[in-house]
Amino acid sequence: MTTPSTTGNPRPANTAAPAPGHVTTGPIRGSRKVYSSPAGHPEIRVPFREIALDPSANEPPLRVYDTSGPYTDSDAAIDVRSGLPKPRAPWLAARGFNATTPRGVKPEDNGNATGDHLVSPCPAPHSVIKGADGQLVTQYEFARAGIITEEMIYVAHRENLGRLKAAEGATDRLKDGNSFDAAIPEFVTPEFVRDEIARGRAIIPANINHPELEPVIIGRNFLVKVNANIGNSAVTSSAADEVEKLVWSIRWGADTVMDLSTGRNIHNIRDWILRNSPTPIGTVPLYQALEKVGGDVSKLSWEIFRDTLIEQAEQGVDYFTIHAGVRLQHVPLTANRVTGIVSRGGSIMASWCLNGHRESFLYEHFDEICDIMRAYDVSFSLGDGLRPGSIADANDAAQFAELETLGELTKIAWAKGCQVMIEGPGHVPMHKIKENMDKQLKDCGEAPFYTLGPLTTDIAPGYDHITSAIGAAMIGWFGTAMLCYVTPKEHLGLPNRDDVKTGVITYRLAAHAADLAKGHPAAKLRDDALSRARFTFRWEDQFNLSLDPDTACAYHDETMPREAHKTAHFCSMCGPKFCSMRISQDIKEDAARLAGMEEKSEEFRKAGGKVYVPAE
Amino acid sequence: MTTPSTTGNPRPANTAAPAPGHVTTGPIRGSRKVYSSPAGHPEIRVPFREIALDPSANEPPLRVYDTSGPYTDSDAAIDVRSGLPKPRAPWLAARGFNATTPRGVKPEDNGNATGDHLVSPCPAPHSVIKGADGQLVTQYEFARAGIITEEMIYVAHRENLGRLKAAEGATDRLKDGNSFDAAIPEFVTPEFVRDEIARGRAIIPANINHPELEPVIIGRNFLVKVNANIGNSAVTSSAADEVEKLVWSIRWGADTVMDLSTGRNIHNIRDWILRNSPTPIGTVPLYQALEKVGGDVSKLSWEIFRDTLIEQAEQGVDYFTIHAGVRLQHVPLTANRVTGIVSRGGSIMASWCLNGHRESFLYEHFDEICDIMRAYDVSFSLGDGLRPGSIADANDAAQFAELETLGELTKIAWAKGCQVMIEGPGHVPMHKIKENMDKQLKDCGEAPFYTLGPLTTDIAPGYDHITSAIGAAMIGWFGTAMLCYVTPKEHLGLPNRDDVKTGVITYRLAAHAADLAKGHPAAKLRDDALSRARFTFRWEDQFNLSLDPDTACAYHDETMPREAHKTAHFCSMCGPKFCSMRISQDIKEDAARLAGMEEKSEEFRKAGGKVYVPAE
Repeated sequence: MTTPSTTGNPRPANTAAPAPGHVTTGPIRGSRKVYSSPAGHPEIRVPFREIALDPSANEPPLRVYDTSGPYTDSDAAIDVRSGLPKPRAPWLAARGFNATTPRGVKPEDNGNATGDHLVSPCPAPHSVIKGADGQLVTQYEFARAGIITEEMIYVAHRENLGRLKAAEGATDRLKDGNSFDAAIPEFVTPEFVRDEIARGRAIIPANINHPELEPVIIGRNFLVKVNANIGNSAVTSSAADEVEKLVWSIRWGADTVMDLSTGRNIHNIRDWILRNSPTPIGTVPLYQALEKVGGDVSKLSWEIFRDTLIEQAEQGVDYFTIHAGVRLQHVPLTANRVTGIVSRGGSIMASWCLNGHRESFLYEHFDEICDIMRAYDVSFSLGDGLRPGSIADANDAAQFAELETLGELTKIAWAKGCQVMIEGPGHVPMHKIKENMDKQLKDCGEAPFYTLGPLTTDIAPGYDHITSAIGAAMIGWFGTAMLCYVTPKEHLGLPNRDDVKTGVITYRLAAHAADLAKGHPAAKLRDDALSRARFTFRWEDQFNLSLDPDTACAYHDETMPREAHKTAHFCSMCGPKFCSMRISQDIKEDAARLAGMEEKSEEFRKAGGKVYVPAE
Repeated sequence: MTTPSTTGNPRPANTAAPAPGHVTTGPIRGSRKVYSSPAGHPEIRVPFREIALDPSANEPPLRVYDTSGPYTDSDAAIDVRSGLPKPRAPWLAARGFNATTPRGVKPEDNGNATGDHLVSPCPAPHSVIKGADGQLVTQYEFARAGIITEEMIYVAHRENLGRLKAAEGATDRLKDGNSFDAAIPEFVTPEFVRDEIARGRAIIPANINHPELEPVIIGRNFLVKVNANIGNSAVTSSAADEVEKLVWSIRWGADTVMDLSTGRNIHNIRDWILRNSPTPIGTVPLYQALEKVGGDVSKLSWEIFRDTLIEQAEQGVDYFTIHAGVRLQHVPLTANRVTGIVSRGGSIMASWCLNGHRESFLYEHFDEICDIMRAYDVSFSLGDGLRPGSIADANDAAQFAELETLGELTKIAWAKGCQVMIEGPGHVPMHKIKENMDKQLKDCGEAPFYTLGPLTTDIAPGYDHITSAIGAAMIGWFGTAMLCYVTPKEHLGLPNRDDVKTGVITYRLAAHAADLAKGHPAAKLRDDALSRARFTFRWEDQFNLSLDPDTACAYHDETMPREAHKTAHFCSMCGPKFCSMRISQDIKEDAARLAGMEEKSEEFRKAGGKVYVPAE
C-alpha cells in the first residue's frame, strides 16, 4: 500500500488517480518540501514548499505555505496502515494527560456492518488520552494562563512563511491593504498567537488525540484558511480510497478537512483518515448520531449524541460542528422562506424540535457538550443550521436570530475553556455580505468566522464554485477566517476528483485575494514573483509559481506544445511577430537608461519630448 | 450552409461543434424565443427567451434577456451567406442618410491574400451609408436634440424584460440593493434612455451600416453587459467557422463581441461576422493598421490608420477601441513597473511614440478621428493602453495619468457628437477596485466604464476567469457598465470552444451578481424562480432556469442518471433516506398552518412552546 517517492528531485505530480490501495505522493510540480525551525526550537519542524526559480531570474527560491503534509515529501515513506509520524507526541507527553480507557468501538458505530461489508480498523497505533478537571488542556486554557504552547510556536513560524521578517518593507505592504480594523501584525510572534487565542479571536483546532497534526491557526489576523469536505462513497472499496480523498484535498491547499461521511463504516473510515491526516479534521457528530438511530430523527437523544461526541473525540477529531443555535423558537421564522432550512444539521434539529415540541437537546445540554469537548480540546464550530439557501432568504430574521444565539453560546464555551469558531452563510448577494461579517464580529465577540461561500447568485448551478468564490473572497477580505469550499457540483451531485481539485484551487485563489486586500505582509510576494516570471517569459517559473502548475502547463501546451516554446520570448496570444510584453520590455530597457525620468513626465516634455537625453 | 430548425418546440441544444460550414442553431434547452413589441410600436420586435415551468409550479413562464439573436429561433432560417434580417433598415432609411461610394476593398485589407489563401467576400448585400455634416447621425446627437430613436425605444423595452412593470414590488427591490448613487429606475422608459445617452452616461453602439443589429444599451443605470473576444485562427478553414465563434459567444450570453483578428483575411472575415451579427461588434483598428505595414510599428502613420477607420466604419463596426490616451509623456511612468505595458494597443502606441520621440498620432488627430466616427455613429471605446498587468502595478501613476487623459478626450468626443465608453483594468487587488470606479466616474464625466476583469490576484493562471470574475462582479456592482470576459486560458494560450463558453457563463454570473447587488428591479426574479424550483425538487425547471442548462443537467446526471431521478424529491447529496430540503418542506407545511406564528417566536415561547396552537 506504500508509494514511496523514488527520488528526492522534483518530478511531475501524479495527478491521475493512484492505483487502488495507494494514495497520491510526490512533490507538486517544480517544488520541494523543506522544513524550518523557529529560532530556539530545533525540535519543532515546520513544513514549507520551496519553488526554485530559473537562474536567469536571479531570485532566491520562493517559500510558500504548505498544507500537503508528508505526502509531498520525497523523503517520506508513506504507508496508510502505519499512519503518519506524530510531531505533537512529545509536546503532548510533556503535558501529563492521563491515558484513559477508550470507550471501545460498538457495532452501531460502523452501522452494524459485518464480514465483507466491514472496513477493517486502521492498524496504526493510537492510545487515547483525556484531560482532567483543573488541568490545562485546551489551547484556549493555556493561552488564558499566559502559557505559550508548542502549537503556538509552530503556527507563528508557519504564518511567517519561515522568515524572521515576512518581507522587506512589510510596513508599506500593511499600509497598502485595508483590513477593516483587523490587527494583522507585520511579524507573527508566538506571544501574538497566544494573545489572539486568549482573546478568542483565533483557534488552533488540535485534539490531544491527534498527534499526527501539523497545527494550523484560524483567525482574522492570520492567513485566510480553506476547508474542503469529503465523504465516503456508498460503496467503499478500500480505506485507502477514503484516505486518498483527504490527501488529494490537502495536496491542492485545503487547510482543514471535514469528514461528512454517512452510512456504514464511518467509525473505521474516520480512524483511517485521522491516523493519516496532518491537517485538522472536522465532523458533524449529529450525522453519525442519526445513523445510529436508523435515520429516524424522532429517536435521536442526548444520550446517543453524547456517546458519539466521546467516540469521535477519542479518535482525535479536531473540531465538531454543533448546531446548538437552532432553537425551537427559531423554526417558525423559516416558514415563509423561499428555501426553508437547507443545512442538513439545521433541518435535523428543527425536525427534532418540532417532533416533540421541545427545545433542542444541543442547546439544553450545551454545558455538558463543552465539558466533553474541553477534555480533548475539540474546538467548536458552532453550526449555522438556519443559513440562507437562496438570495431571497439572506440576512433574514431566522438567520440572525440563530447568529445571536451562537454569540451567547460562544461566551459559555469560552467560560468552559473551549476554543470556538462560528459558521456562516450560504447564499448572500454582494451588498448584504458585509452586514454578516459585522454582525458576527459584534455578536460573537470576534470569534473566528467560517463561511460557506457565500454564493452571490442562485442562477448558476454548475458554476457555484465561482458564484461562491466571489462572496468568499469578499467576506474573507472583510474578516472571515476560514472559507468552506464549494465545488462545481454543488446543488447537483457528488463531486468527483476533478471537482474537488477545482473547488480547492478556486477557494485558495479567493483566500489569497482576501489576504492581498487585507494587506497581509507576505501575500504579495508570490504575485510579484509570478508576474516577474510572466514579464520575462520564464514560462516554467510562471507555471511552478501558480496554484495549479499542472493545469497552467497543460493549457500552455495545448496551444504551444513544443519544449522550445517554454523558453520562447512570446506567447500564443500575439505570437512571435508582435508581442506586447516584448515591446514593453524594450521600452523598459530604454527607459531604465533614463535615470530620473521615470516619474517626471512633465520635465520630459519640457526637455523637448526626447527619450534619449542625458541623465541629470 | 443552413441548419434550419426542424421543429418549433424546444429541443436539447446542440452544444457540440457544428458540422463544417454550419453554425449552431436551435433553442437553448427548455426555452423558446419570443418577441414582444413596446406599447404603440408594433413594428419594433424585441427578442426574449421564455422558460416554461412545470405545471406544478403554478408560475408563468419566466422571460429572460436574450443575446443570442435569430440563431436560437426555431422559426428562423439561417444562411450565413445571406446574412441576418435587418431590423434597423426601415429606421435608418427614414433618417435620410446618403449612400456613399464605398472606399472599396484593397489587397492589403486582407493581408494581400490571394487565390486559395483568400477567404471569399460575404455575398450578403450591403450598401454603405454615411451621415453628413449638420445632420443628426449618432444616438448621442439625437438624444441631445431631444429626439427618441427607435433604438432607444427598443433598448428600453429590452431592459424591462418586456414587462410594463419590471416586477411587482419593484420599489422594495430597489431599496434592497446598493447602487452607489447610480440612478437605476424602477421602470425604463424611452425618455429615460434618451436622457441617459444625452448625459453621456450610456451608449447604444450602433453603426448606421449595421442594420442587422439588435440594439443594446451600455450604461451604469442599465443591466450590466458582457463582452466576449473572438479572433481568427492562423489557418482559416472557412468563413462559417469564424461566424460560429460569434454565434457560440452570443448563445451563452455575450452582449457585444470584439473581433480581435490579426493576420490575413481580416477584412473579409469581419464582413462575414458583421452581416451575421445581431450584437454590436467592436474592433481595435490599430491591429489591422499594423498588419498593413507588415507589423513594423515604425511604419504606422495617421494616414494608414485613418483609412482603416473608414474601411471598418463602412463595414458596420459598432465601436472602436482607440488608445489615444497613451501619450509620449506617459511612457516613462511605466519604466519601473513589474509588468510594463501589457495592452497590445498600448505597447504599439508606446513603441511608436518612443520610436520617433513624438506624440501619439491618435492623440494629435483625435478631432479627425471623432469626425470619422461620428459620420457612421461608431462609438468610442477609449482604450486603457496602460492598464496594470499585475497586482503590483495597479492604480499606479501611469494608469491614472492615462485615465485622466481619457477624461479629456471624452469631453472632446462628446462635443463632436460621438458616443463614448472608457476601458478599464486589468489586474487590481480587491481593496483598490473601488478607487478605479470612483476616479473613472469623476474624470470621465460618468461615461460608461468597460473593464477587463479586474483580476484580483496574479497567482492562478488557468483559473483567471475566476480571479477576474471576483473583480468583475465587484466593479460591476460599483458601477461598471460592461465587463470584458476572461477565459481559463488567459495568459497561457488561445481559448477553445469550451473556454469561450466557460468565460461567457462566468461573466454572465458576475454581471448578474452585480445587478442583484445594485438592486436592479427585475434581476432577482430569476434567482427566486430557480430557488423555488430547487426547494420543490423541480429538477428540469432548475436546469432550465440556470445560465447553462446543459451543464447543470449533465452534472446532475453524473450522479443520478435515471430519468426518474429528475422528478425525485431528494438529491444526491443526502440521498432519499434523509434530505434537508424535504424535512424543511415538512416544517414549512406545518408552520404554514400556524398563521401568525412566523415572526412571533417570543409569543410562541410564551404560549408554551407548542407548535400546534390555534391561529389568533
